Amino acid sequence: MAVDPSGAPLDGLAATLREGALVTDRDLVAGYRHDWARDPDAGWPLAVVRATCTADVQAAVRWAAEHRVPLVPRGAGSGLSGGSSAVDGGIVVSLERMRDIRVDPVSKVAVVQPGLFNIEVKRAAAEHGLFYPPDPSSYEICSIGGNAATNAGGLCCVKYGVTSDYVLGMEVVLADGTAVRLGGPRIKDVAGLSLTKLFVGSEGTLGVITELTLRLVPMPPPASTLVAAFPTFDASAAAVVAMTRTLRPSMLELMDRTSINAVEDFTSMGLDRAAGALLVAQSDAPGHAAGEEIAALAKIAEEHGATEVFATDDPAEGEAFAAARRAAFPALERLGNLLLEDVGVPLPLLPELVRGIEAIAAEREVTIAVVAHAGDGNTHPLVVYDAGDEAAVARAQLAFGEVMDLALSLGGTITGEHGVGRLKRAWLPSYLGEDVLALTRRVKDALDPLGILNPGAILE
Amino acid sequence: MAVDPSGAPLDGLAATLREGALVTDRDLVAGYRHDWARDPDAGWPLAVVRATCTADVQAAVRWAAEHRVPLVPRGAGSGLSGGSSAVDGGIVVSLERMRDIRVDPVSKVAVVQPGLFNIEVKRAAAEHGLFYPPDPSSYEICSIGGNAATNAGGLCCVKYGVTSDYVLGMEVVLADGTAVRLGGPRIKDVAGLSLTKLFVGSEGTLGVITELTLRLVPMPPPASTLVAAFPTFDASAAAVVAMTRTLRPSMLELMDRTSINAVEDFTSMGLDRAAGALLVAQSDAPGHAAGEEIAALAKIAEEHGATEVFATDDPAEGEAFAAARRAAFPALERLGNLLLEDVGVPLPLLPELVRGIEAIAAEREVTIAVVAHAGDGNTHPLVVYDAGDEAAVARAQLAFGEVMDLALSLGGTITGEHGVGRLKRAWLPSYLGEDVLALTRRVKDALDPLGILNPGAILE
Repeated sequence: MAVDPSGAPLDGLAATLREGALVTDRDLVAGYRHDWARDPDAGWPLAVVRATCTADVQAAVRWAAEHRVPLVPRGAGSGLSGGSSAVDGGIVVSLERMRDIRVDPVSKVAVVQPGLFNIEVKRAAAEHGLFYPPDPSSYEICSIGGNAATNAGGLCCVKYGVTSDYVLGMEVVLADGTAVRLGGPRIKDVAGLSLTKLFVGSEGTLGVITELTLRLVPMPPPASTLVAAFPTFDASAAAVVAMTRTLRPSMLELMDRTSINAVEDFTSMGLDRAAGALLVAQSDAPGHAAGEEIAALAKIAEEHGATEVFATDDPAEGEAFAAARRAAFPALERLGNLLLEDVGVPLPLLPELVRGIEAIAAEREVTIAVVAHAGDGNTHPLVVYDAGDEAAVARAQLAFGEVMDLALSLGGTITGEHGVGRLKRAWLPSYLGEDVLALTRRVKDALDPLGILNPGAILE
Repeated sequence: MAVDPSGAPLDGLAATLREGALVTDRDLVAGYRHDWARDPDAGWPLAVVRATCTADVQAAVRWAAEHRVPLVPRGAGSGLSGGSSAVDGGIVVSLERMRDIRVDPVSKVAVVQPGLFNIEVKRAAAEHGLFYPPDPSSYEICSIGGNAATNAGGLCCVKYGVTSDYVLGMEVVLADGTAVRLGGPRIKDVAGLSLTKLFVGSEGTLGVITELTLRLVPMPPPASTLVAAFPTFDASAAAVVAMTRTLRPSMLELMDRTSINAVEDFTSMGLDRAAGALLVAQSDAPGHAAGEEIAALAKIAEEHGATEVFATDDPAEGEAFAAARRAAFPALERLGNLLLEDVGVPLPLLPELVRGIEAIAAEREVTIAVVAHAGDGNTHPLVVYDAGDEAAVARAQLAFGEVMDLALSLGGTITGEHGVGRLKRAWLPSYLGEDVLALTRRVKDALDPLGILNPGAILE
């Protein structure tokens, strides 16, 4: 019998799983240690359970509970906060193989397993003329289970809201291995506490989601797109504030000069390298209303000093600009290592946040590029640094914390859509305050009394 | 010192409250025993605290905790499930006097105290060209705090979602008297567990909400309205299913023949008394799109056998039909006493639910009128009975339970938007099942270990 150093008999686990679900080969296990945040403190797990069904997940949780072994749930591993960094001596439960989907076009719901990619949910819905709105930039490679675990956002949220708004129900495996069903295919359901919503965004610390019932809406018409260049970020942010005051665009994104140049290096699209900010907005209003909305957005952009304004109702051309915005992460990754921020502030404070970030970048002598889901006040400052230069690493980490401190001082949040994970955990207490931290701990302890579920994520 | 029979010194409470907040006069207290559900088992409280500020609520909760006295929070008392029935020997905390509101038109949020009526929130938002969507039929007299406590719905939910979708943050007094702030004016915020959403819909069993931060959206254009009469309820329900498949109306309501006739008796609007169902739909799509959407809805209505189809883009005329639908409760109340149901099923099962309700009404020899937020699959069967006739009361109560059992057998919910309160509590265990009930209990016990917060609501 294989016994790991902590004394937990892995053979006992293997016997309760479907054939082949348990992975202990060190090379294979290595691939499950990190998510995209590349947490340097990620541990070495004893084993990975590649679950094929809810029963596998239950068996893994029961085993972890019995042996007091930490369990880290994991979707596609595209998380940006270290929420699925492996833990030394723990096990990783990967949901990547649980990939069923069933779309009910009459109830307008999709019942999906957690391993499916977001884009696959969108595609399955689209086959029935239906739309699953949430669209993290990583939608082609992020899992729907991870989306629910982090309450993921995206570019559409300014009009369509976040993942939580679309999760009507779920099956979740609790800390004792019990699988429960919460909610269901009903838009309105207030029978009992809002437990479904509590599990959304809990980052695997309260249970492991094994199925989701997602709300779908009728497919909106293809979007029209506006692209506007502004001399300064301030001017573009002021335009965004004015736009959201009366209009409901389906996308309202900003890139700062550093991002524009990195993306232009990457894509050679002909973006204006001298612009202080580039705005990409879309409208998917029905009929003539999209054109009217784009015209109204263009007018506001011009009133706020936009130097170049381009509109198109060609969906492919519009998507190229949206894709350029989404390409900011990979484009900037070519410049160096990245620390990914996700700070948000009340919309009117967006210019102040960005000015403060510029000051931090200057002070710490690091590059910080800013892309923003501007309509939501949610930004992704990306701290670019050279991992080989120890002093640069230290300065980058200092800047990373200072950006979160800045957001907090502006009444903002340390994470708008990526989650706290492990990399932002140290800043959570000052965001929540002592009393809400204690409340959070009470909920966590009630649902995971042994503390085996994703320990170290969200809470210390 | 006034000491109540349970030994709790009320004078100690009075000393910690603002002048005049404590009410012990029996005639005044009597007005705080019931909500609209007229729960016959409502108790006699020791006193009512008419809180004027968060500190009053904290003082009341601390006193209740110290003396182990049940505390029932209460908004406008328009609840339909007995969620604010008073408890013998407890205290009622009324939030009716906490009525501040502050609209921030740039962040597009309203920060409101719980005692404000829903309509007052809508009006304050409208002054800034903004819209607070949730619209319970009682919106002119229900409190926004009660809306959040029950996760209230309304007529707009088919397009705009429910209260929970608009609650971005809150101040809530916990069971030990601590006041905490959860969330805030940010559309995206995933820092920590989704506690804000957990408190929404918790019916005062986890804490007392003393302030809400609500998301507002730009005011949509005035709605156009479609009214269609159908020979049978089945035909109307099939039309609704077809409509929601491709269109996003902002209202999609049905009334059955009993409701139509009761409302016509009440309003003399000239509704078709012979119709099997009346559909009232609205579109608030921008520009020409509203007319196009109404035309598309009309076409589907006709394809499903509508005998009379009437469209108008006159907002006042449209509102008259919406008001007729909302008048169903008071209109039916004239026919006798009411037991108010709130069952919901997945949309395709709506015809089956209504057929089953008809069978129950025939079997139990009671009148059951049905109005429905049809686009959501949420219905309000209203059991009409004569409270003076003991046998009729018994038959009505039997029917009341059987309708919930029917909804459960169809995979539905016992309450879509009114809450469990006390009157539906007995059906919650069979809806949730043993494991989810235990999970609910764990959360409740963690947040209210002494069980002082609205005991008897939701849970036994």
